[in-house]
Amino acid sequence: MFVIVVYDVDVKRVAKVHRFLRTHLHWRQNSVFEGEVSRAQLYEIKRTLESLLEGDDSVLIYEFPRGDFTLHVVGTDKSPAGEVI
Amino acid sequence: MFVIVVYDVDVKRVAKVHRFLRTHLHWRQNSVFEGEVSRAQLYEIKRTLESLLEGDDSVLIYEFPRGDFTLHVVGTDKSPAGEVI
Repeated sequence: MFVIVVYDVDVKRVAKVHRFLRTHLHWRQNSVFEGEVSRAQLYEIKRTLESLLEGDDSVLIYEFPRGDFTLHVVGTDKSPAGEVI
Repeated sequence: MFVIVVYDVDVKRVAKVHRFLRTHLHWRQNSVFEGEVSRAQLYEIKRTLESLLEGDDSVLIYEFPRGDFTLHVVGTDKSPAGEVI
């Protein structure tokens, strides 16, 4: 499956959440990650995030059956590798 | 088509970008919007955003053929209506 992950967490925990997500997904822009994962990986991602988040922290995970999307970047492309899928 | 829109803009322009996106899409969380749009609406959204953005502002628009996703919310659900699709 394909997932898009957007985090909104307190600045105190940004580094930890960001570092963890980078181990599983492709970093698209600031708080946005994406990638293909298995069901087991998705479960692991959710479980680990649950242990990292506190207070009002929140992470959205959009799960799609396939990664058949078109990405439009309006304004500056901040994708770390500068690549556009 | 179904779109997920994530903005990353300077605080000076957040209100304007946010207000505009709310006229076309469903507000999911902070800088995240989603919804069904026609091709004409997507064009209009991109064109208007281009006129609003400045400097390093950036908006990602993920376009999917269908909105057949599952949304997982880890941590606090900040969806304005508290709803989960």
